[in-house]
Amino acid sequence: MMLVKLGGSVITDKMNYRTLREDVLFRLAGELARSEESVILVHGAGSFGHVIAARHQLQNGYNDPSQLMAAAQVMEDVRTLNLAVTSALNRSGLPAVSLPPSALVELREGRLDRLELGVFRRYLDLGMVPVTFGDVALDSRRGLGICSGDQLMESLAREFAPRRIIFCSDVDGVFTDDPVVHPEARMLEAVDRETLSSLPRSQRCADVTGSIFGKIETMLRIAAHGGDSMVINGLAPGRLAAALKGEKVPGTRVVV
Amino acid sequence: MMLVKLGGSVITDKMNYRTLREDVLFRLAGELARSEESVILVHGAGSFGHVIAARHQLQNGYNDPSQLMAAAQVMEDVRTLNLAVTSALNRSGLPAVSLPPSALVELREGRLDRLELGVFRRYLDLGMVPVTFGDVALDSRRGLGICSGDQLMESLAREFAPRRIIFCSDVDGVFTDDPVVHPEARMLEAVDRETLSSLPRSQRCADVTGSIFGKIETMLRIAAHGGDSMVINGLAPGRLAAALKGEKVPGTRVVV
Repeated sequence: MMLVKLGGSVITDKMNYRTLREDVLFRLAGELARSEESVILVHGAGSFGHVIAARHQLQNGYNDPSQLMAAAQVMEDVRTLNLAVTSALNRSGLPAVSLPPSALVELREGRLDRLELGVFRRYLDLGMVPVTFGDVALDSRRGLGICSGDQLMESLAREFAPRRIIFCSDVDGVFTDDPVVHPEARMLEAVDRETLSSLPRSQRCADVTGSIFGKIETMLRIAAHGGDSMVINGLAPGRLAAALKGEKVPGTRVVV
Repeated sequence: MMLVKLGGSVITDKMNYRTLREDVLFRLAGELARSEESVILVHGAGSFGHVIAARHQLQNGYNDPSQLMAAAQVMEDVRTLNLAVTSALNRSGLPAVSLPPSALVELREGRLDRLELGVFRRYLDLGMVPVTFGDVALDSRRGLGICSGDQLMESLAREFAPRRIIFCSDVDGVFTDDPVVHPEARMLEAVDRETLSSLPRSQRCADVTGSIFGKIETMLRIAAHGGDSMVINGLAPGRLAAALKGEKVPGTRVVV
């Protein structure tokens, strides 16, 4: 089984509220379909989630009734994105089933405490493609919170021990520094705990689910549960298809 | 707490595939918002679900891999409708949370065997409006099946013992015969087990979830768990708002 994450920065324009990259999404759906692999797909929320979630501090829990409309709006927005994702998979011939964290996850102080994994397994066994995503979810201590795509990846990797774990980003891999701001930044062939600690601290974009460092930390934890794990560029045509086949592609291996 | 069902024939044009009655939906969302009552909302699938579900016999379970794409398409279509419903509630100031049966229901030979009710209660306690709907769901014996809005109504009524249960139909209430085909048909003030058995057998529209008789049978079972139960015309402006307040409106009471 393969576990694939489509980052919010790949399938959405993160700088513009509710803006889908429809051509990218449809191409990636086609690459998944051609692989003929059994897949669970996780996608980020990108510009469909982070703007309003951050403005109303949903990642810190429910404190004020005014947050309820914000939570409902974030849920509506990420479902709009998720519907586009499942629709692209269906049009590519992959039967998708949406499994939303708001219905299946319990957080505890922002950490993923419980994910109802049985339904993922059952749809996978039927031959469908379970699709889950960054979403608002219940929190046993804080009422509500944000469940990120990476938290879902970790829980799913632990349960399913995937043969390959592929993170699709909007850059070629993990760089020594932000390659947009620092053109001299070098892409790393591999990251492990040691390389991580040597990287400079920077952040490209406000994101309620944490910086790239948190993401790499999480990737290292996720990679511990599966086979090959790597970060590739989802904006470069063909790389996801090649990575699914186990071919060598530009990217950063995540090494435990 | 109020339990409200928006029939598929009210919020969609049942004769035309994937056709929303957006004006009706938005008006009904406004009537729900003005009531300021705690509500769980169930909606049918109408023309977003029945056409493809019937063509591929999804109500009889999973027998053939060709049904997987149909199941995925029905899920996509009913989510398109559900997103319109939650969006209308949000725009009316009611914070909606979508709770899909595909993630939360287990059928057993087509009957609703288990619905994860805890999440409904928790979102309700937070002040949100849980919204669920006719959907494809897992079936422990048949792989997949169809979970109808009425099956959800029954399970939710049993759990929450609502003060009022309101079914919004596309006609004024329950008639002695189909009022479209038989203009002499008389609307019943109330239905109970006796009146039901005296009605002639007819059916207006192909529907994978059963005829109006099955629906009345189910309504009688549902009404047994709550307070006042009635069938009203959701196409007539103001009736849902009045019924939510307990005012007398044209319609058929369901009497246990």
